[in-house]
This record gives sequence, C-alpha cells and structure tokens, in this order.
Amino acid sequence: MRRRVAFQGELGAFSQVAARQLAGDDFIPEPKQSFEEVFVSVVNGKCHYAVIPIENTLVGSIHENYDHFLKYDLPIRGETFVRIVHNLIAPPGVKFSQLRRVYSHPVALNQCRRFFEENPQIEKTPFYDTAGSVKMVMEKGLTDAGAIASANAAQIYGGKILRKSIEDDRENFTRFFLLEKPTRGRRSGKQAERTAAKRFKTTVVFTTRNLPGALFRSLSAFALRDINLTKIESRPLRGSPWEYLFYLDFIGHVEDPACRNALNHLAELADMLRVLGCYPVG
Amino acid sequence: MRRRVAFQGELGAFSQVAARQLAGDDFIPEPKQSFEEVFVSVVNGKCHYAVIPIENTLVGSIHENYDHFLKYDLPIRGETFVRIVHNLIAPPGVKFSQLRRVYSHPVALNQCRRFFEENPQIEKTPFYDTAGSVKMVMEKGLTDAGAIASANAAQIYGGKILRKSIEDDRENFTRFFLLEKPTRGRRSGKQAERTAAKRFKTTVVFTTRNLPGALFRSLSAFALRDINLTKIESRPLRGSPWEYLFYLDFIGHVEDPACRNALNHLAELADMLRVLGCYPVG
Repeated sequence: MRRRVAFQGELGAFSQVAARQLAGDDFIPEPKQSFEEVFVSVVNGKCHYAVIPIENTLVGSIHENYDHFLKYDLPIRGETFVRIVHNLIAPPGVKFSQLRRVYSHPVALNQCRRFFEENPQIEKTPFYDTAGSVKMVMEKGLTDAGAIASANAAQIYGGKILRKSIEDDRENFTRFFLLEKPTRGRRSGKQAERTAAKRFKTTVVFTTRNLPGALFRSLSAFALRDINLTKIESRPLRGSPWEYLFYLDFIGHVEDPACRNALNHLAELADMLRVLGCYPVG
Repeated sequence: MRRRVAFQGELGAFSQVAARQLAGDDFIPEPKQSFEEVFVSVVNGKCHYAVIPIENTLVGSIHENYDHFLKYDLPIRGETFVRIVHNLIAPPGVKFSQLRRVYSHPVALNQCRRFFEENPQIEKTPFYDTAGSVKMVMEKGLTDAGAIASANAAQIYGGKILRKSIEDDRENFTRFFLLEKPTRGRRSGKQAERTAAKRFKTTVVFTTRNLPGALFRSLSAFALRDINLTKIESRPLRGSPWEYLFYLDFIGHVEDPACRNALNHLAELADMLRVLGCYPVG
C-alpha cells in the first residue's frame, strides 16, 4: 500500500523534496495549508506520515512546529536536510526582459535581495507559498510575471527556470523531521531500527523548576556523560509567564546506557520530561 | 528638547504604550514600518531612542530583533512589560450586530480565536498592523467592519470600543527594550544609573567553540557564582550551518564583582562575547 505523506504548502514545496528523501519516491503527497493541518491529518489517521521543517540555517527554528509537538503526540522517526535553492520560474515563452513582478513567499523574497537590487524593474510581490506562486503564474498564463520556488515546482507545473539559484546565501539549508503516528503497544523511541553502523539522535522536551542554576544542572546530565548536544531551543511555557520549555537534541540512542542514565538523571531534575523521538542522524 | 522615540507600527501600537512606560509621556512618537527602520533611525541619529518588543509570553521571542542586535550596535537601557489587551473597535455609531469583518494583525486575530468561534458571522481579516487596522476602518468610515487593537489606538483614531479584552488568554504579556545610541567615550553597560535599591539585569550574546559540553561550561560561569539566568535564546550563526549564537539575560549589574568575574570566565570559553546592555529590572 502506498503511504500518504502530509506536508505544508502546494505540490512542489521544499517539504515535498524532504519527503522524498525521507520516505522514498513511492508515496502519495498530501499538501496541506497549515502546519496544524499536517499534524492533525496524521493524528486522525488520514495520512501515515508528516514531514515538517524544524529549522533553517538563516531563519532559525520554525517555532510553531516545536509548539505542535506538545499538543500532538507524534514521535520523530527521521531527519533530513535540504539545500534551499531559489529559482526564478516563468511560463515557457516568457523572456526575462518581460518580467515586471515576481511572486513568492516573503521569506523566499527576502532571501533573494541581491537579485531584486540588481533588477529594479522587477517588483517583489508576496504570495502565500513558493510552489503556489508557480502554480498561480502558470494557471493564469501571466506574461509579465514570474515566481521563485524549487526546481521541483517548475517541473510539476511546467514552468521554465529563467535563473537558477538566485538566493543571496548558498548556506541555506532546512532540517526536516519525519513524524509517524505511534503504533499501540510499542514504546516511542524504540522504533528506529538499530544497526551498529548507524548513528542516532534523540530529541527531548523538559521544564525545570524556576531556580538559579536549574538549566545548568539539567545540562550536567549530558555533559557529565560526554553526550554531545546539537541543539537547544527555549519556548514560552503557556500559563507561566517568563518560564520556559527547553527542547534538546543530543547524539545517541535512548537505549544506550549513557543516554538512559542521562535521561533518568534529567528526570530527577525536571518537572516534566518527554522523549519526542529517537532517529538515525540525517 | 523633546526626545524622538522610534517604534514599529502605527500610532497607538502596543510599542507606543511601552514607550510611554519607558520614556515618560513627553516624547515625540516616531512610528516606523519595520523593525529594521526602527534600529536605523537611532543609528543615524534621527531618533533618540528605539522601543522594540523582544518576547511575548504566548508567541515567544521576536527573533528578528535578536538578529538586529548583532548588526546595529545599540545598547539596551531599559526593559518594561505590557499586558496585551485586545479590544474590538469600530467607528462610533456602528453596532456590534452590523459587523461582518474584523481587521487586525494575524497574531492578534489568532489570539482571539474564541471570539471568532462564538461569532461566526464575523470574518477575520488579516491586516499589516493592529493600530493600523483601526486607522483604516476609521478613515474609510466602514459600517460593517471593526478592528482589534489597543485601547490607546481606539483613543488616537476616535474609534469606539465595542468589546473589551477579547483575547483568549489573559496571561499575554510582551517584554520591550529601550535602546539608545551609545555616547562616545562612555562605556556601554556603565550608563544605567545605580542606586543600592535598584536591581539590574544584563543581556549578553556569545558563541562557543562547537565542542561537547561547550554550552554547559559557558553556563558554569554563572552557576558557579550563583548568578540567576532569566532567559536563554539560541539563534543560527550565519555562515556556520548548525552552529548557534546564544543570548543570555541574567540578574546582576556588569560592575558587580561576581558578574564581572562571570563575564571574564565566559570570555575565556567563548569565541565571541558582547554585552548588549545592563539596565534596571522592569
């Protein structure tokens, strides 16, 4: 049975590129308007997997998705990285000299500032989605407008790439997570298949009592066992103004003795601790 | 001479409420379209102060402003907290039953979900600014539309408050910073006037070498001296994918011996360390 994979954005979104890396070529793409709809579609069983962006090297974390982790209990099964390449796309036959407007998501437009500075005859025009802007330009058959999106979007909607890779900064990568509904009776975090060769990463969320040195003591659970943290993210704790949740990624499998001990140690210090997933390093 | 205070948004924005708390009543408000324009207007001397939101108890940090700290060297001189109260505002004479659309900033609309669920006849309509939506509704004299914004905005544009405090969550507070251009020859961080009675907070930014335990060791500089951290925020380090800058707030004055020692200790461990400001606790 072909698996349904939900992601935010139109067909051709960067999330679909990530989905292919995480789930292979043979899946049914299920584009959704919002991240919340992506989570809900897996929780209610309409889709098998969700693919969501979690951080970008220029923009930072996608905080909305961190917040959804708490609300929807979907374990992380995998991670992958996609280099974000922005292409200028127009309907076939439209020449660069004809372009007066270029549509895309505001984040993509802001990542192509140099292009707009060098081409002041072209107006940057915010649109709700990168791939969606290609779809719109193609459907309307515009002859004076283009869109900025992935090469994948150009292919899907039959657009022509007029300029490749017009982003200001080439070190533009997004990290994506693969989420799956937990299967009854199996413990979260145990799912990822282990082979000696594979390296694993684990993501947890916790709160500390609001005491001096609480975060320091929490991190000691990892530092004292030489466990390498790769990411820390703080988010406001709802209902407790100026207190925070901490999301941590560390290298290691939850079943490794050192990691198990570190998590037991952290559980002693934390008010709340949840393992969000254990997955092969992407 | 009356001081010019720059903030993002139209007259009546929550930032103007914060500006009043930080700079008193007697200042010339200088509304700007973007946060970047706010920083630039102080750097180039057109305004004396900037007032910017830095974090909200529901939405989290305003990351764009963290990033501007690195680019523009404007020391933090003060902090304050504003409770965000969303009011439904319409032109005088317009009745609640006439309303079919309500305009506001998308974040404000999302914080009033219950109101829209209970009033399905009213469509939520995104607008670029909360106070700006009141201004627009008043200028156009709309009879079927309202806006969601501060009571201050209702007063400025002559709108009438039809419903007070329609936000879902009352624990909705925003923390604001007051920034000032540094005066030549005076050391940043030394400016805030000290009296024995006042408590101070200090904000710093640093990067660590990407080694296991680097963040833990950095935090030890504070924990070993019983200095209380109130906030940690990580942001991507441009040009070094998957490495991070850390912003820390701690209780204490940069000239306190323990804080001075902690900062010297942190400087040993950090690749980069900057004090962004030392200011009275808000």
